[in-house]
Amino acid sequence: MALIVQKFGGTSVGNPERIRAVAEKVMATHLAGHQVVVVVSAMSGETDRLLQLARAMAAHPAERELDTLLSTGEQVTIALLCMALEEMGQAAQSFTGTQVAITTDSAHTKARIEHIDDHKIRSALESGKIVVVAGFQGVDLHGNITTLGRGGSDTTAVALAAALRADECDIFTDVDGIYTTDPRVESRARRLDRITFEEMLEMASLGAKVLQTRSVEFAMKYNVPVRVLSSFQDGPGTLVTNEENSVEAPRVSGIAFSRNEAKLTMIGVPDHPGIAHSILGPVSEANINVDVILQNISEAGKTDFTFTVDRNEYAQAKDILGAVAQKLEAEDVRGDDHIVKVSVVGVGMRSHAGIAATMFATLGKENINIQMISTSEIKISVVIEEKYLELAVRALHAAFNLDGEAPI
Amino acid sequence: MALIVQKFGGTSVGNPERIRAVAEKVMATHLAGHQVVVVVSAMSGETDRLLQLARAMAAHPAERELDTLLSTGEQVTIALLCMALEEMGQAAQSFTGTQVAITTDSAHTKARIEHIDDHKIRSALESGKIVVVAGFQGVDLHGNITTLGRGGSDTTAVALAAALRADECDIFTDVDGIYTTDPRVESRARRLDRITFEEMLEMASLGAKVLQTRSVEFAMKYNVPVRVLSSFQDGPGTLVTNEENSVEAPRVSGIAFSRNEAKLTMIGVPDHPGIAHSILGPVSEANINVDVILQNISEAGKTDFTFTVDRNEYAQAKDILGAVAQKLEAEDVRGDDHIVKVSVVGVGMRSHAGIAATMFATLGKENINIQMISTSEIKISVVIEEKYLELAVRALHAAFNLDGEAPI
Repeated sequence: MALIVQKFGGTSVGNPERIRAVAEKVMATHLAGHQVVVVVSAMSGETDRLLQLARAMAAHPAERELDTLLSTGEQVTIALLCMALEEMGQAAQSFTGTQVAITTDSAHTKARIEHIDDHKIRSALESGKIVVVAGFQGVDLHGNITTLGRGGSDTTAVALAAALRADECDIFTDVDGIYTTDPRVESRARRLDRITFEEMLEMASLGAKVLQTRSVEFAMKYNVPVRVLSSFQDGPGTLVTNEENSVEAPRVSGIAFSRNEAKLTMIGVPDHPGIAHSILGPVSEANINVDVILQNISEAGKTDFTFTVDRNEYAQAKDILGAVAQKLEAEDVRGDDHIVKVSVVGVGMRSHAGIAATMFATLGKENINIQMISTSEIKISVVIEEKYLELAVRALHAAFNLDGEAPI
Repeated sequence: MALIVQKFGGTSVGNPERIRAVAEKVMATHLAGHQVVVVVSAMSGETDRLLQLARAMAAHPAERELDTLLSTGEQVTIALLCMALEEMGQAAQSFTGTQVAITTDSAHTKARIEHIDDHKIRSALESGKIVVVAGFQGVDLHGNITTLGRGGSDTTAVALAAALRADECDIFTDVDGIYTTDPRVESRARRLDRITFEEMLEMASLGAKVLQTRSVEFAMKYNVPVRVLSSFQDGPGTLVTNEENSVEAPRVSGIAFSRNEAKLTMIGVPDHPGIAHSILGPVSEANINVDVILQNISEAGKTDFTFTVDRNEYAQAKDILGAVAQKLEAEDVRGDDHIVKVSVVGVGMRSHAGIAATMFATLGKENINIQMISTSEIKISVVIEEKYLELAVRALHAAFNLDGEAPI
């Protein structure tokens, strides 16, 4: 008998019929002899409906009240799923974040889980019940309802799995696993049977939206095996664990990319110690994340300084940089919001040389100019012109032998 | 500075615009120097929407889960109202039943309040906040969410007023007070300035739906003055208190009626001690409330036994009575679901003789046959044919000098 946490997102519980289908899936696991804790999101559309009501009340709704409002979405789903299970003759019990209790800090709308009390859940499981927990929500030390931010249900599931020392955490989504790259860009993309947390983190932070980054960090920290599966079709999905692939593992596991990129360059800025902080300080103070950074070799006491930001923060970042440039007496600020980032990811890189060389050669052969480069131990990212995105992804997918139908 | 509890029903908070209007009303009371605790229901239509979802999941949804589901309705409203208040620059704080905490027994869907912790509410009030509490819901000793049953928000408001020793409990509804009778039946019906709890209880139990019976009992027990007001127009409403009207008070305060009546008669049942229990025992075991009861004088060892029930329980009661009649060897069971009950109500009756005589004479003059009679210290009810309802109400309204425009 294993203890399995299963998480179903908003699309999977989007209407009564789908909730019943989830109940059947969960029952099947229970009947196979396992203890099951289910984590659910709000029915798809519900969170948006509630946000619309909030915006009708106030331009900037009070955050404590926003959490009280939004948390009702998941509360509706847990009740409905339990009703479906009880209708099938299966004892079930729902838990809000408060009822568990999932204790968080008091940072409304983006709270962090501090502690999970497993007492009530364990006793419900031991009495043979299926336990259904509201994702995305918690409670602070004063009894205020908090939420973990969008996608927080993944985090709830992984955190619960860690607290309960579950054998596996199944994340049911609308895709059937993690792919070598986005199948909409490269039809020869393959589903991966296994991937490491580190690779998953790089894939997620590079634009693969299957799992929320924070939930992967949590799973890695507490070593909770996570399986990404489809709600709508059977299959083994992709298992995300700490274990690396076998010796035969490929050097590269996947090609990730992000279209949500823009770059800013400050030209002819006097080069002296602390210049990077003078430029990036005001940007980060505005809560704008800077990603790839490039500082040119200084020439005649002046240098060029380039960095990338999220495309939707481009305009704001450009305004800030304009003011900074005046102060620093730089020559000019230039921007480009038609760039993208393409990355090769794989723990196999650690033991294989020449990945970067292959990557650059492949892009060069396609006449794709590399504007910026950023590397980590298990990924190499390049910034290129937006129009080359599909070409670059397909060329790299082929170059690293990721094409094909057979599972790895 | 007074402490005032104000309750707004589902129609009063039916959309964002109306919630804003409620916020303004509440603010006005706050700006007049009072501490305000607001109790709100779910937005009109919301409870029905949730019930529909529940019924899509199960024919008889698990009651614990039904409470978890339905309680989200009020939780949405408290958050939205607080957002509206904060948008007006007014500090506000919402409380679910769990957060207060409003502790109830564990009788899901019809829980009873056992204790209210006033600690958190008082501290919010003392810091200058308007407090907004979800009506209709509570929490049992195990942390399960409970609901008080339909109309339970009135009970929440009165119970809170009692626990906080509030100066007044204002119930905002879609009518502007308690009337001498239903204005849809008698256009000369007048709004009463004052009414006693006892009269209100009789009016409510006799079909006047303005206040939930349980909330009036609660208010009477804890001596909480209750004012019934309109959400949509200004006015003094009707004050419900323990105090009787002045010496000049009329003998009768109002004419109440109920269309929701049916009667059943067991004919020719052998008369022996315990016969009433033999007949009514099986009926009450089926949870059917019996109202007016009439047993004829025995003749030749046999008697007729008649009682009234709610019209929607008529069919079930008739089936039960059929089985009982066979066992008791009674001659026949007859039923009539085209009867109504009309009542005159007034604490003034205590000190005025001849109310019954006037009532019977008035009905007699209109050729209305009285089928059954039931009396209490402050009301006389008669069961009559349904078709005479309007005629009876108007005749009695005039006979007891209730017609007119001027307030009492």
